Order: sequence, then C-alpha cells, then structure tokens
Amino acid sequence: MINILNGIYKLTLGEPEVLTPIKLRRTSENLEAFNHLIKISSPFTDEDFKISVSQRGCTVTLPIYEEERIYGFGLQLKSFMQNGKKKIIRTNADPSSDSGDSHAPVPFYVSTLGYGILVDTARYVSFYCGSSAAKEQKSRESELGPKGTTEALYKTVQSSSSMVIDIPVAQGIDIYIFAGTDMKDAICRYNLFSGGGCLPPLKGLGVLYRGYVDADQNGILDISKALRDDHIPCDIIGLEPGWHSKAYSCSYLWNDKKFPVPEDMVKALKDSNFDINLWEQAFVNPSAPFYDEIKDHSGDYLVWEGLVPDFSILQAREAFGKHHEKLVDLGIAGFKLDECDSSDYTGGWSFPNCTQFPSGLDGEQMHNQIGIFFQDTQYELYKKKNKRTYSQVRASHALASSYPFVLYSDLYNHRDFFRALLNAGFSGLLWTPEVRQTDSAIELIRRIQIVCLSAQVCINSWMIPNLPWRQFHYEENLRGELLPESERIALTLACKKALEFRMSLIPYLYSAFWKYKTTGTPVFRALVMDYPNDIYAQEVEDQVWIGDSLMAAPIFADEGNKRNIYLPEGVWFDFETGARLIGDQWLNEVEVPIDHIPIFVKGNSIIPIANPVEWINENTQFNLTINIYGSDISSFALYEDDGYSFNFEKGMYNITELQYNHNRLNLDEGFISPMKKYIIDQIILKGE
Amino acid sequence: MINILNGIYKLTLGEPEVLTPIKLRRTSENLEAFNHLIKISSPFTDEDFKISVSQRGCTVTLPIYEEERIYGFGLQLKSFMQNGKKKIIRTNADPSSDSGDSHAPVPFYVSTLGYGILVDTARYVSFYCGSSAAKEQKSRESELGPKGTTEALYKTVQSSSSMVIDIPVAQGIDIYIFAGTDMKDAICRYNLFSGGGCLPPLKGLGVLYRGYVDADQNGILDISKALRDDHIPCDIIGLEPGWHSKAYSCSYLWNDKKFPVPEDMVKALKDSNFDINLWEQAFVNPSAPFYDEIKDHSGDYLVWEGLVPDFSILQAREAFGKHHEKLVDLGIAGFKLDECDSSDYTGGWSFPNCTQFPSGLDGEQMHNQIGIFFQDTQYELYKKKNKRTYSQVRASHALASSYPFVLYSDLYNHRDFFRALLNAGFSGLLWTPEVRQTDSAIELIRRIQIVCLSAQVCINSWMIPNLPWRQFHYEENLRGELLPESERIALTLACKKALEFRMSLIPYLYSAFWKYKTTGTPVFRALVMDYPNDIYAQEVEDQVWIGDSLMAAPIFADEGNKRNIYLPEGVWFDFETGARLIGDQWLNEVEVPIDHIPIFVKGNSIIPIANPVEWINENTQFNLTINIYGSDISSFALYEDDGYSFNFEKGMYNITELQYNHNRLNLDEGFISPMKKYIIDQIILKGE
Repeated sequence: MINILNGIYKLTLGEPEVLTPIKLRRTSENLEAFNHLIKISSPFTDEDFKISVSQRGCTVTLPIYEEERIYGFGLQLKSFMQNGKKKIIRTNADPSSDSGDSHAPVPFYVSTLGYGILVDTARYVSFYCGSSAAKEQKSRESELGPKGTTEALYKTVQSSSSMVIDIPVAQGIDIYIFAGTDMKDAICRYNLFSGGGCLPPLKGLGVLYRGYVDADQNGILDISKALRDDHIPCDIIGLEPGWHSKAYSCSYLWNDKKFPVPEDMVKALKDSNFDINLWEQAFVNPSAPFYDEIKDHSGDYLVWEGLVPDFSILQAREAFGKHHEKLVDLGIAGFKLDECDSSDYTGGWSFPNCTQFPSGLDGEQMHNQIGIFFQDTQYELYKKKNKRTYSQVRASHALASSYPFVLYSDLYNHRDFFRALLNAGFSGLLWTPEVRQTDSAIELIRRIQIVCLSAQVCINSWMIPNLPWRQFHYEENLRGELLPESERIALTLACKKALEFRMSLIPYLYSAFWKYKTTGTPVFRALVMDYPNDIYAQEVEDQVWIGDSLMAAPIFADEGNKRNIYLPEGVWFDFETGARLIGDQWLNEVEVPIDHIPIFVKGNSIIPIANPVEWINENTQFNLTINIYGSDISSFALYEDDGYSFNFEKGMYNITELQYNHNRLNLDEGFISPMKKYIIDQIILKGE
Repeated sequence: MINILNGIYKLTLGEPEVLTPIKLRRTSENLEAFNHLIKISSPFTDEDFKISVSQRGCTVTLPIYEEERIYGFGLQLKSFMQNGKKKIIRTNADPSSDSGDSHAPVPFYVSTLGYGILVDTARYVSFYCGSSAAKEQKSRESELGPKGTTEALYKTVQSSSSMVIDIPVAQGIDIYIFAGTDMKDAICRYNLFSGGGCLPPLKGLGVLYRGYVDADQNGILDISKALRDDHIPCDIIGLEPGWHSKAYSCSYLWNDKKFPVPEDMVKALKDSNFDINLWEQAFVNPSAPFYDEIKDHSGDYLVWEGLVPDFSILQAREAFGKHHEKLVDLGIAGFKLDECDSSDYTGGWSFPNCTQFPSGLDGEQMHNQIGIFFQDTQYELYKKKNKRTYSQVRASHALASSYPFVLYSDLYNHRDFFRALLNAGFSGLLWTPEVRQTDSAIELIRRIQIVCLSAQVCINSWMIPNLPWRQFHYEENLRGELLPESERIALTLACKKALEFRMSLIPYLYSAFWKYKTTGTPVFRALVMDYPNDIYAQEVEDQVWIGDSLMAAPIFADEGNKRNIYLPEGVWFDFETGARLIGDQWLNEVEVPIDHIPIFVKGNSIIPIANPVEWINENTQFNLTINIYGSDISSFALYEDDGYSFNFEKGMYNITELQYNHNRLNLDEGFISPMKKYIIDQIILKGE
C-alpha cells in the first residue's frame, strides 16, 4: 500500500488491466487542496485485503465491521444503505431493479467508519456488501425462517463480515483507499482526487426548460415567450432531437425545414435572456459531416446505424469537437448527452459488450466509460472557449466530480428520484429529478418543488407543446386545450412559488458550489454524511442537506400532505418562521400545505436569500436579505465571479465573509474587492 | 463440423471449457428414436461461423436471414419472438425486464427456417439476435428518427443480419446445430438429444394444492378434508417450508412440534388418495444430519447460512440422496426445489459468482447448472425406487427435457405467465402458471382456467389457510371469514368446472406426454411451432397448442370477456359445439363467458375425453367419450401403463390406436394387450 496523497492510499493486487478509469482519466487531482487537510493514515493494512485470481477474473475481499454502514456505488435509484446487498457496476438505462445497474454506477463506496474504497476498473464489477458469508465464517444462530410474504423472505440481511469484490476479466486490481476524519471528509478527498467539484455558470443554477420534440424554430420562440408571459423563471431552453436533420443516430446538423435560420433563433432567445441547450447522442449518423473522419476511430459495431466514437482517442475527440465548436460559437450553452448509457433493460439498443474499439477498450469497458469520455470531449470545447457550461448527461462513472454535467433518467418514481439525489452525493455526481408528465396538478407542484432542491431545475416538456402549468393533462396539452383560467392561474402561481424559491437560493447555492469545487464538499447530500453515527440519519432517505446550513424535507408526488421529519441533534430553526426546534427528535405527521416545502436551518447559520429574478445575465445583481438564525457567532462565505468564464481560475473572484457577532453583521476584511453581484437590502434576525 | 446424430452437428471453435452442460450431463440421448427420423443435413457450413477470442472470452457470429424468426432461450417471460433483442442466459429469480434473465434460461434458440442452435456453455452467454449491426455491414436507409414516446424510441428493431454470441471467460466453444424438416422437428431432435421428454406419473397430471405455510399436521389434514368436501379434484398436497425444523436454509427434518407423527399424516392423506410434495432448498443448514458429510463437497460460500452442495460430485449427491431416501420411503411423491435460481433482482441472497466449488465449477457456472444438478439428484432417488415423480423446480437450463420437474415463479403477470408456457416448449421445459393470490373472483377463475392448460395444475395457497374459492380476499381468508354462501358456491362451481375439464383431458394429455417422451414433441407449444411460415402464427403469444389436436385461446385475468382468436389454415371445430370453422382467419371480439375456455380442435381429430375423477389412484379407470371431429379418416394413439412406475421402460405399456374410418371407430389390432385403464362409454361425432 502506498500513500499517494494526504489520506489516499493505493494498493496493487495481482496484475491490473492497462485500461482503467484512473489510467484513462483526463482530469487532474486538485493537489493544492490536499495541503490544507488534516493528515490521516489508512484504516486498513495490506493484510486486510485478500485476492484470488482465475481465468474469469479476480476477487478481492476486505472486512466490514458490524457497526459500519455502507453507501455509494454512484447513482443508485433503488436503495440507499447498501449493507447486505449485491451491487453490480454496470451502466444501464432504466435499471428496473435494485441490482446496481445505473446510468452512472461507480465502483466506489463509503463507510460510516470514515473511509471510501475505489476499485479502479471499467469492468462490470460486483460488490457483495456483506451479503455472502464464506463457508469458513463462524456460523451465527440467526432468525431466518419461513416468512408469510415473498418480500419478507427475500429481505436483505447482512450475513457476513466481508466485502467481496468480484472483478471480471482482470487478473489484478488497483484499490484506492480514501481515509478521512469522518465519512464526509473521505468523500471530500475522493472529490478532490477527481479534480474537485464543478462550478456551474450562474445561469446554470436557474431553470432549464426542455421544449416540445416536434417544435420548430417558431415553436421554440413561442415557448420562450409563453415562459416570459407567465413570469416563470427560466434561464435555458433545451431543444430535443427534432433539431437534427437526422436523429437516432445523429447528424449534428440543423433540420433546415424546421430550423431554417438557427442564428436568428439563437439571437432572439439571447435577447430574451435564454441560453440554449441541444440534445444529442454519441452515435454518429452517416449523414454527419465528420462521419468519414471518425470511422476508423470508432467501435466495430453500430448503434442505430451510427458509429460509436472511441473518445479515448485524440482523433475521435478532435473530429467530434471540431464540428461541435461551430455550435458553441453559434452560442449553444450546453448539450444533453443522451443514451450514452447502455441498454440491457430497454430493448438492447446499444453496442454489444464484445465490441472492439481501436484503443483496445472492449464494449463492456466502453459502456462504463463512454459517459465520462463524452463529458470530457464536450467540456474541453467549452474550456477552450473560456466559457462555462452546465450540461446534461445520461451516463457517468468514477472521477466525474469536476465535470459540469447533470444526470437525468427516463425512470420516474418520485421516491427513487429523490433517493438518487442523495446517492449522487456519495460519488461526486450531480442529478436532476426532472419534471416530465404529471397526472395531477398536485403531482406537478410536488415534483417542481423537489427538482428545485437539486443540482439542476429541469422541466422536461419534450412530450407537450404547452407549458405544463397551463395544462398538465397530456392529451389536452397536445390538442392545445388549456386548463380553465382560474385553475391555470392557481397552478401557475404554485409552480412559480417553488421556482422563485429556487431563484432566491442562487447566491447560497453558488457559494456552496464554490465550496464543492475547492473542498470537495457535496452541495446536495444525505443526512448521514454529516451525522454518520446517528442511527436514524443512517436511514433517512427522504430529506436532503443543501450546502452547510439547510435541510429540506419535501413531500412526494401523490403522497398526501403529511410526513414525519427527522431532526438530528443540535438546534434547528424553521426556515420560514424562524421557530426554534431542538434536534435529536422526530417531528411526526407534519402538515405540509401544497405550496410549501418544509425547510430547516441548522443553528447559528447565516442564509443569504435573494430577491428572485426571472433570469440571470452578465449584469444581474442580486438583492439580498441576510437571514440570521441563532444569536451566537456565525458566518457565511459569499462567493462571486463573472458567472460565466473560467477567469476565476486566475483569481478573478471574490469571497465576502459575512460574520454575525454580538448582534452585528460584519463583512469580513478578508474580501478581495467590494461585492459586485450582491446588494444587501436587509438583515433579519430570524431565530433566537 | 461433425455429424453426431441424425440431424445433429457439432462444431468446435477455439478451445472450449472443460465444464459445460453437455460434458457434465448425466442423461443420455434417446438414440433409438433417431433411427426413425428423416435424414437431414446441416443448414450451415463451418464458414458460416466466425469466432474471435480475447481475455474476456470469445464471440461467435453466424447469419440470420431477413425472413427468419427466432424463438427460445428457455423460460422467457417477457418476450416471445426474439429477433432484434439482446438476451443474456443468466439464471435469476424474478427477472424484472426482458433481459434474458430467467429461472431457466437456455443457450438454445430455434428458427422458423427449421434449425436450432445450442451453445454448450454454463456461462452467462449473451445472444444479440440481429440487434447489433457490425460497422462493416452495408448501412440501410431506415426510418429511425425522433419519436413521441419513450416506448417508441426504444422499440426493438432487428437491424443486423448476424446473430452475435458473446461468451464470457471461455476461450472456445462447442456449437450444436439441430437440423430438422421444420422448426418443430428440430426441437424434437433437441428433446431426443436431451433424452426425450419426461413421462409424469398419471397422478401428476391432476391437481397440486400447496397448503398454508403455517399449517401443522392437523391443518394440512383439514385442508385435505376441505378439498374433498368441496369435491374439488386434487391429487397432491404440497407442504411449504413450515415442515422443516429449520428452513432458509434447510434441515430436511420434520418440525416435530408441528408435525409430531408425519407417518400418520402421510397415511391419512394416502387414505384420502392424496400424494405429498415437500418444499425444500438445496442450501444445507448446520442442523441437517448430513451437514458434516457434505461440507467438503460444497462451495466456499454459504446461502442463508447453509452449504451449497456441489451436486456434480458423487459424494454430494450421495449424502443428499441417502437422507432423502427416507422421505421417499415415507411416501413423499415429489419435491419443490425452491430458490435454486439466483438473485440479482431480489436482494442478492444467493452465492456469489466467484464462489468456488470442489469440482472446479465457479459460481457463475453453478448458478446456470444447479437447477439441473438438483433435479438430477432428486430424480435419481425416484428411479432407484422404481417410482415416478412429478416435482417442481425453480431453475433449469439446457438438456432438461427428460426431467419430470415443472418450473414456477414468484412473478405473477398473467400474460407473462402464459407467454412462459409457450416459450418453455421451445427448450424442453415444463411450466406451471401457478395460481396464488387473486384480487377478484374473476381473476381466480381465469387463472385457474389457464393453469389447467399447462403442464401442472398448481394452486399455491401458501399464504392462506382457507381454500381460495371459499375466500379470495387475503386478509379475510387469514381471519377465517369466508365469502357469503351463495357467492362461495358459485365461485367454487366455476373453479371446479375448469379443474374438472382438466381431469377430463388426462388420457389425452398422458398420451401426448408419451409422444413427448418418444418423439420429443412438446405437449404445450406455440402456434408457430406447427405453422412456422404463418406470419400471424409467428406472433400469436396468447393461444396454446395442447397435444396434436387442441388449441386453446383463454382469457387473461382482468382482461374482460372478449378477445381475438387466430385460426391458422385448415379446418377447425369448436371443441364444445362442434361448429365447423375455416382457418386462416381471425375471429374478432369473441365473447368468452366467465366459466368458459375457448378451445378449438384441428380438423379430423379424435379426442378422448374422460369422465372427470376427483383423484387418481392405482385402480382408477377412466370412462371415455370418444369425440370425433370431422368425417375423414383420423386416429389417436391412446397410451396407458401402470401410471406410477418405470416398468414402461421394460415394455409394460399399451397403446391403443383409435381409428375412425368410414364412420366407424376401430381399436387398432396393433395394441399389445386389451385396455385396462380406459372404458369407452360412448362415441360422439362432434363435427362434420
């Protein structure tokens, strides 16, 4: 085991493969950040790891202790705490079961004992998280026995004190151990090792509205006008596949019947302060202008008749990038990288696992890496233009923390969507529980409330031409039959309230993303990350931490208007009323009106709240109310920069340390220059 | 390519593994049967197959022609025609998607062009059935493009002219080609190669009722009395896990509190003409008497704290068998071999893929083989005692045709259950769409109707103490609150009608099973097997052939009382009315009353129908009505033997050839001895 960075240890067992996530990575560690961290040593010794190697691959075992709880494995939708489970790290669209399959599975898990384990493989590695007891393990007298229901029969039970990691093909493996002062610190070190968290452009934290798939140039402009007419906050319009002359696979060329002069559309949208995001796949249609150029640098199987570029090869990235540069130059602010996951559960449309790529990667490895490669290829474009993007992607893997791409899914169960939000935080991923169709007005409101608590507020109306709050019924929306006026106004107001709340949080969120970037602290995270030894927090999967001081406990679509809420130890304040609450308790059957999201503030916090704006541009200034919760000393580091470029990397940013002390708010002298983006309107003592 | 049997060819590519289904098999081909078959040569040449080998395994490709349709891959629940799909042969409980995972996946597929391909591997082999086009394949101008729904986007399309077979680990493979005069003939040869179909004991074709899991000795006897009180046909009572002193894993010992004198219970049940079937797993609890004996002959991981025997090793089979012999001697007629499938979708409770077994098999291979091994171990017991069994099993694989074990599942979608019935017939498997809980009286009736059209009529009331027609509501049943009398009587009659219909078919079915045994012709099969070139028959997945002359088109639970029915070319008769119908047509919106199963008879058929009996014993004689459909020459081979032993193997059986010719029914002179089990009551000319 060698110590490669403060708290990070690498153990090589057997003969690892040549093509692995770490060896293929194109990002670098945030080395500087490691200097500031507490020195910490490995919780494991070499002897804790056992390996066996065979023709079918290698198997590594290491201990799990009875009291520790395991989380992670990337964007898991179906479960939260992983003890007792088998998880396979296999990229797949629409995982239908709790098998480990995911758009963004990551061979990385963390423990409440304060460490993380990264298995450096692009293979479909399986983790048996204490689910499988070895024969030689001392047998326990347990309570297993016939049960009355199938669910009870197969309820997950941790029966073993070992993590068994089964890696196909590879004849050896590099294991990376991330030690931390606690679980969150271990995750921070993983994120910093991955390059640190990403910093979205300011506009990216606003609302992304994806338009109707069949809309043409005028249709898109109509949608943009409707948004402004309804005074719904919106910063980005997303175009779905219809913009391509060929999609499934993609031409990456405008459909000139529907979009005759895209420059005009882009300009009109810019003039109304909308950015544009374009849908695309990685699969290159024969009609794409760079098809021939990329042909030799792609896999030996097609998807939807399109080439699958080997983005690990410079020529493939360049051919793809050169063409896309024109789109970026046109003013496209981001992309939605669709279907770069795989497809064992939805018709088998992707390339086979036996596909061979020129780099030597096979289909299995590529399925687990193409999401990362695709992000890297597109991100490189924007870096070159000194322009930040906040894009979408449907697949990711290890070491993704620094990519400004947000995951989404065709799945839709609301609790699963929320669970994904928490799980994403364990592995350096970002997630939007996007809002699509809803069966009721209540569902629309509740889904919008929750998407406002995530990395990206995406309202994906690809199936409907009219704004969903004007008509949530699918068929009627298609036919242009809007809700009766009074109903429409009420629904629009309820949706707007949630979206405006989001807009009011932008300075708080932007500052939290800066912290994510520089310290690795996830912006959206599970309670257990801050309270690893709290047995309730270990299981709470319907509440989310946001930044350092806010905790939200929203209501799910169609689950009524009451819920139980857990407050960990300490002092808490109701975000709206400022009412003081003592933690280490459950609030039972809390009534949650339809236009309300229960939010709690950790004791002694400062929360800057902005007057909500409808959109953000380069000149936007945020009028802030500084809410002070608790009468003790507290502080908040308010971050600002130009909001759109990488100039912050050259030090062109500003941090204002808001400090509350002896009933006074001070702006700390440490700030580099006077605030430009923020105007403090008022200071309110919310809780005492 | 070498010709190993009439119509069967073997092609060795690369260096195949040592442990494969064919190399491990303990059954033998039915060599004698091959002598009677038409000589036929391979539809492929060596050059049609391409192989590539790498560290991760090997990949074989062979052609698929545009007009051919692919079926098979074992007990597929989620799809029927397989063109354009990716199918992975991975044994799993409760496959939640159409991924290929199944209780009984089989690396064998058949084509409407009249051949079958068996890939001799126990690995999780993937078949890409024309779903993946190679880069060098000529690109087609297709109609792919953005679609309005997710389902439309991912609809399966065959885009390629190749079958791609991706075999993990193995550095080579044996491919077996089964040529036939048509698809059905190729399947027959596969079944004969597997040893021929199984012949159940006569009683096995009656009704199996699985009792309440918490019932004790008296509870079981109460259930048996209730069945007789209701005059519901029943031949076998199944005991669920509660009979074990330890279950999950199993002790294989009676729970002496609940079953103090099992001999008495067995005798009482026998006296009422009930056989007994016992639930068990392969996982050996430390309290099992042969635990120590089997320990060294089991895998290195436990399941539910139990050993996983390596049944491929003689000592494991012997230790397991020796103990079970006592149960057989006690009078146990069969077993339900539960959870011998695997568990990627239900909590991960099985052994890891990296498990090592003393034979050299690993966990992946064992998952795909343990169902076969387990069947073989238990079947051997019965053969030794010269007693036939008709048992249940939850996992199977290739070459299972001769094992008298019927598959079942915890899944429950009614259409999926029916589809499994058809698909099982492509790969030498038997299946029961067992009836468990139902939400309505209608559902109970419709489910019972359909289970009566399958290999085994299983009513699995493990969750309820009272007979389901007395109370189908779960909670009320548990509390002993029965339906109001009039409702109860009506529901009982409707269920009884379906079950009595089944009992009336027993001579017909028993004769069909004899044909299955001797010619390999599946008893229950899809229309396409008999009409491979009929484009409608190729897609009909809600009608079933039974034997040579009957086709059923039942109604599914909660799908109303109307359906469309397809009649392939030829003359047909309505089974009940004898009404003559001309084929090659759809009957649209056929009304199906709640107590009715639409059944059609192929023109010129003889159908022996028995007076339904409530149970079968050694002395049972069937009173037959011989129904003649059509006025042309027709015949039926009526099979009989003692019904319970293997003495038929020594020629102790009788076939009476019923021949209808010139308005006369003759009993053919070729019969060996006068009929003993059958009495012809009447002859009816049903259709003319």
